[in-house]
Amino acid sequence: MTSRSTNVFWQDYAVARADRTALLHQEPLVLWLTGLSGAGKTTLANFMAKRLYDNGYHAYVLDGDNLRHGLNRDLDFSEAARHENVRRMAEVAGLMYDAGLITLAACISPFQSERDFARGLLPPGRFVEVFVDTPLEVCEQRDAKGLYRRARAGEITNFTGIDSPFERPANPELTIDNSCRTPDECADIVMDYLNRHGLLAAPTTQTPP
Amino acid sequence: MTSRSTNVFWQDYAVARADRTALLHQEPLVLWLTGLSGAGKTTLANFMAKRLYDNGYHAYVLDGDNLRHGLNRDLDFSEAARHENVRRMAEVAGLMYDAGLITLAACISPFQSERDFARGLLPPGRFVEVFVDTPLEVCEQRDAKGLYRRARAGEITNFTGIDSPFERPANPELTIDNSCRTPDECADIVMDYLNRHGLLAAPTTQTPP
Repeated sequence: MTSRSTNVFWQDYAVARADRTALLHQEPLVLWLTGLSGAGKTTLANFMAKRLYDNGYHAYVLDGDNLRHGLNRDLDFSEAARHENVRRMAEVAGLMYDAGLITLAACISPFQSERDFARGLLPPGRFVEVFVDTPLEVCEQRDAKGLYRRARAGEITNFTGIDSPFERPANPELTIDNSCRTPDECADIVMDYLNRHGLLAAPTTQTPP
Repeated sequence: MTSRSTNVFWQDYAVARADRTALLHQEPLVLWLTGLSGAGKTTLANFMAKRLYDNGYHAYVLDGDNLRHGLNRDLDFSEAARHENVRRMAEVAGLMYDAGLITLAACISPFQSERDFARGLLPPGRFVEVFVDTPLEVCEQRDAKGLYRRARAGEITNFTGIDSPFERPANPELTIDNSCRTPDECADIVMDYLNRHGLLAAPTTQTPP
């Protein structure tokens, strides 16, 4: 194997991120939804996507499950592959951010170091960690995909919450337990947070052509 | 290692691609620029990005070199890793397409099967393969990154055009030799192609909220 990573050059872009965001009339953002399987991350991401769309924002949902059908289809569920799964999700969220979009990343991402890595790819303040803090008992009772049952039966290993840890976020921007809230109520909380912190404000310094 | 790929569920999105493209007021597209190292792919991608931006289109450059600093930083230059590099580029281009953007992917992608794979991820007609057909002699003479010199000296192996093949595209939408053209003239050719084929037409069927 030949490594020439040190010979990979950085290519500057003719159109800068500020140009793209001015043309899109929005500041990009990554909402990173972390939580157990079945916590409601994807549901919340979709409700948020609809809210943002209805308000004229350009958003995109990056769903961990869906990525495993494409970009991450080569990865299994070994510990290393699960880390790589989150790393790629973070890198793609970073690219979407760079492209100017508001990205809703729904991904178990059970380890603090993984979420910190994702945060570190973005400018300060543009990464919003949303901990979908639905209790394990509730997730397991829902078990929409039947995965908890299989994990309990030992048919699946390395399953977060059963035989693999979930490290609760140390300092998330938002913590939401949706077990006693409708998805609309959860989306209200997130939208309120974004608005209160001015995170949906349009760019002010550039004007598109 | 536990594989449960068959247990990964597809998550439907509340906002469809057609909604996103209506809001962006454009139909997404992937321009896939293939050619030797130093052929001028990145330069053309940047000129195209500027043209599209100046005309109000939302575009993004995915550059093979830049991806190796992030998403693909775990990959070396072995044959398998080079394939994986192109596969991921194609998958990300597909995600950018799904998000509604016009994506300019600049990537040597020396093998027909790789380019066919990238094409296959998109709806018919929305993948435009642009063969930047700059002769090897010209690329080697430019050698802006000094890589040809090192490949000739045997310091780098698996280098396309030297000790690794470049399969000329069988049926590219466009072939451009830029050795006797300015980047602006090359961009003219691509813009002309896109316009003549109606590929930059706005969506007609949906209206955003």
